[in-house]
Amino acid sequence: MLLRARVLYPFQSENATAISIEKDEELLVFDEHPVQGWMLGENSRGERGLFPASYVEVIGAPLESEPTECVLRSAASPDFPSACHTPAQDQQSCDDTQDYWDDWDDWDDSLSVEQDGQPGNISWANGCGSQSPYNSPAVSYCAKLDSEGHSSLSVSHKSSTVAKNLNRFSSFVRSGVEAFILGDVPMMAKIAEFYTIETGRRGPQWKENPHPFTCTIEDPTKQTKFKGIKTFISYRVTPSHTGHPVYRRYKHFDWLYNRLLQKFTIICLPHLPEKQATGRFEEDFIEKRQRQLTLWMDHISSHPVLSQYEGFKHFLLCTDHRQWKLGKRLAERDTLVGAHFMLTLRIPDELQELRDVEEQVDTFKAYVRKMDDSVMQLSQVATDLAHKHVGTFCKDFQRLGSAFWSVGHAFTMDPLHGSATLNSAIAHTGRTYEIIGEMFAEQPKRDLFLMLDKLLLYQGLLANFKDMIHQQKGAFAKVKESQRMSSEGRLEQEKTDGMLKRCLTLCFVLQAEMDHFRKRRAESFREMMQTYLREQLSFYRSVVVQLENTLLMYDRL
Amino acid sequence: MLLRARVLYPFQSENATAISIEKDEELLVFDEHPVQGWMLGENSRGERGLFPASYVEVIGAPLESEPTECVLRSAASPDFPSACHTPAQDQQSCDDTQDYWDDWDDWDDSLSVEQDGQPGNISWANGCGSQSPYNSPAVSYCAKLDSEGHSSLSVSHKSSTVAKNLNRFSSFVRSGVEAFILGDVPMMAKIAEFYTIETGRRGPQWKENPHPFTCTIEDPTKQTKFKGIKTFISYRVTPSHTGHPVYRRYKHFDWLYNRLLQKFTIICLPHLPEKQATGRFEEDFIEKRQRQLTLWMDHISSHPVLSQYEGFKHFLLCTDHRQWKLGKRLAERDTLVGAHFMLTLRIPDELQELRDVEEQVDTFKAYVRKMDDSVMQLSQVATDLAHKHVGTFCKDFQRLGSAFWSVGHAFTMDPLHGSATLNSAIAHTGRTYEIIGEMFAEQPKRDLFLMLDKLLLYQGLLANFKDMIHQQKGAFAKVKESQRMSSEGRLEQEKTDGMLKRCLTLCFVLQAEMDHFRKRRAESFREMMQTYLREQLSFYRSVVVQLENTLLMYDRL
Repeated sequence: MLLRARVLYPFQSENATAISIEKDEELLVFDEHPVQGWMLGENSRGERGLFPASYVEVIGAPLESEPTECVLRSAASPDFPSACHTPAQDQQSCDDTQDYWDDWDDWDDSLSVEQDGQPGNISWANGCGSQSPYNSPAVSYCAKLDSEGHSSLSVSHKSSTVAKNLNRFSSFVRSGVEAFILGDVPMMAKIAEFYTIETGRRGPQWKENPHPFTCTIEDPTKQTKFKGIKTFISYRVTPSHTGHPVYRRYKHFDWLYNRLLQKFTIICLPHLPEKQATGRFEEDFIEKRQRQLTLWMDHISSHPVLSQYEGFKHFLLCTDHRQWKLGKRLAERDTLVGAHFMLTLRIPDELQELRDVEEQVDTFKAYVRKMDDSVMQLSQVATDLAHKHVGTFCKDFQRLGSAFWSVGHAFTMDPLHGSATLNSAIAHTGRTYEIIGEMFAEQPKRDLFLMLDKLLLYQGLLANFKDMIHQQKGAFAKVKESQRMSSEGRLEQEKTDGMLKRCLTLCFVLQAEMDHFRKRRAESFREMMQTYLREQLSFYRSVVVQLENTLLMYDRL
Repeated sequence: MLLRARVLYPFQSENATAISIEKDEELLVFDEHPVQGWMLGENSRGERGLFPASYVEVIGAPLESEPTECVLRSAASPDFPSACHTPAQDQQSCDDTQDYWDDWDDWDDSLSVEQDGQPGNISWANGCGSQSPYNSPAVSYCAKLDSEGHSSLSVSHKSSTVAKNLNRFSSFVRSGVEAFILGDVPMMAKIAEFYTIETGRRGPQWKENPHPFTCTIEDPTKQTKFKGIKTFISYRVTPSHTGHPVYRRYKHFDWLYNRLLQKFTIICLPHLPEKQATGRFEEDFIEKRQRQLTLWMDHISSHPVLSQYEGFKHFLLCTDHRQWKLGKRLAERDTLVGAHFMLTLRIPDELQELRDVEEQVDTFKAYVRKMDDSVMQLSQVATDLAHKHVGTFCKDFQRLGSAFWSVGHAFTMDPLHGSATLNSAIAHTGRTYEIIGEMFAEQPKRDLFLMLDKLLLYQGLLANFKDMIHQQKGAFAKVKESQRMSSEGRLEQEKTDGMLKRCLTLCFVLQAEMDHFRKRRAESFREMMQTYLREQLSFYRSVVVQLENTLLMYDRL
């Protein structure tokens, strides 16, 4: 509820998120419940921000004019701002208020979007797509239903009698796989997207993106808005096919991630780099986030399905603020998400034996577990080693350096009889080991951190595969149950055939995903190991050069 | 007291130092007081060694024939076996018994020799000196007194009245410096040795050894005697001027050290490597002792006075067992030791101002303190670093190696789709880091240990200099006291002049020692630093080669 309050004691703001208030001034309070002693509101000069709750006295409801209800709702439930249905102008004001809460929570802009579930015949604004190289009519939201051949993926009437799972939170259920298998996902009137799996040399694989591209994420820059009240980091994102940069914040990545999560429940999606509570503007953190976002983006861009997602294109191409809002809402209203996405799949005609696929999946499952263990092990060792580089290694070599220096210095106290050249060579050796200590401390930025970022990405992918295998096993079980029921005459053969067909569709997806993972893995680990070894080599070579130069000083004696 | 004992319970010896005993057998017991439950004695078969005290019952004194009293005395006070005046045959038996106690104490043969203080007109056996290049008549024990010029170093009648120090344990007193300064050291009838100090470019210095040489200490070999009852390490010591090796045990070094300590109380003598209670036959310990003995020997051989000591020549040249015993006793009966050694000094005619020397000594004192601090600091850092090399560094890199290997291994579990070349490259990387870990563990043997040995030697030398400066300050104080007394008419001018002259002699010795120390220090630290850096370079270069070879495996992919 929006309230009025009177200021009891003056308060002088000393940072960007708080506002100054004068004694006896009247304020608007956006939420009567203080958080950690602070309230959010607007002072008589129209400045919005935080102030100490104990400095004011709430005196009642406000005049009915402004701010809009949007502010109230978004302030009360900051996780769901899209529930706000106001015109663009209000939406802007709503988003701005959201920013306060972002800072309040000290998160870098979290945005999880609620899906309203209303199918709609909406098209992407031309302004956003104008630079797009994707002009295939198949991937346009406004194309009419392609009705050839693939309607059997869905059934038009509910009549399955195979039991549903009790655990509604299992990924089997949440992903929509159960609903899809059981035939509970009705064919929609309008399907404009299709994703194709074909048979490659090594088995099922996604049809490649006909216009492959990569992305760079560069130049993280601290920016402010609202007269410095709001500070954030902006990254320059440049897709290789356009060469035109767009500027995105973490919250935009987070928005995209949530779109992808919702739509592609059966595709292995790398985790977005974690939110960070504190130190968001520290150099090391910004570097780390940039590296991690780059790896994340590499993975999305390389994926034949994810890279062609309209929401992703919007993210990569849109430069206009108003178009951004429109495209954002379009993506949020996409109905071909989760179980419905499975209706868009085109699979090879080839018939696979369920038993063969099960065997493949079991082998892969054992591999995933083993790889997960060893990635975890390497990750722990590398973390530990990185700490030691910055800590004990650095300190040990610097202590050695300082001890050498001290010996060199002691010699100068016997000046008449010492060799100045020797003394300075020893002191120089001291400096050399101090430098080597610093080099040890700096080194993880060049090798271990990169390795750790990649291992983190893979830990996420492997966790996803565990879920996907679980989903697939659930599908197998349902099919077997239906076959048993059918053999007992309790289920029509037609329905059993439908379930088998849908299960095979899912098999193809998992196989295509395994294929993509394997291709990426080989490239990814080769590159990771090479980079690590090259950086290590360069490090030890630098140490050698340092020592060589130092040794030369003694040869002159 | 030598006793008889009867065996109550049989005991079967299972090592070289113990003897087997039969029930009811009669034994000779060399000491009635057991040490840690063991007694030393001889069984009825003539075997000597240890047996459990509780297994026997002492029954009384033995027959009066054998063993000789020597056994008794040396057993009772193993530190002073030379007090035994028996013919060579008995001396042998005495030494053998001594060996039991060496093992008993688990020391590598400690031998401190009591000085009997009897001046004697004895000469070195020809057999020992036959290979000696030192044929100068000046340095022969049997030469008659050279009476030219230097008798003023001593006074022939006791008449000083300057007070003696109360603390009889201060090095000022122990070294004989006080007695010398006060003129309490009578000129001896026969002085055959002279040590000369001359004025060099940088001040007073010892006249160089006209026949400089170096020594190698090599090939430490485990040897046994008395049918394996006694085990020890023998070193091959080869002086450069003869090229003929002699074989010496730690106890011989210790004997030499104690001779030097006793004779050259005003000369800076490096500490002998420490005795070791356990693990004397472990490879690492033997290597360490060899390195430390080599450094010790380098220092003695390089010193113009120490290197010309007859006892040292005997140590380096004597190869005959009987001659060894004779020469050993000669050295032990040397009377020109401690305060008397100071009578052998020949100093330049030049007159030094006491004040100037005092100033030099003060500057040197400040330097010694500072250098002692920094050597200590470097020593601690290096010790710590050596531990880390063997411990955490080794472990960290091996853990990294093992984690890489594990990732490579995980990949082989997805065989159809993995690249065997990549998998083996990753596994090879694992092996590389395991090797690097081993290299880290081995490295201290090549650099840090050598550095630590040298620092230890210098810690000893610096501690000696602290003592020597203390002695010199004591001498200054005595001279000042005498001058005051003389000015008050309480002391004859002649005595004051004598004390001043003797004090100046000591000044020259300290200055010559400082000079020698400085020359050695420059060379020694240059060499230490160079060796350390060279070994470090070679280490890091090996790491680079390991990494280069490993990286090549990825380039082939």
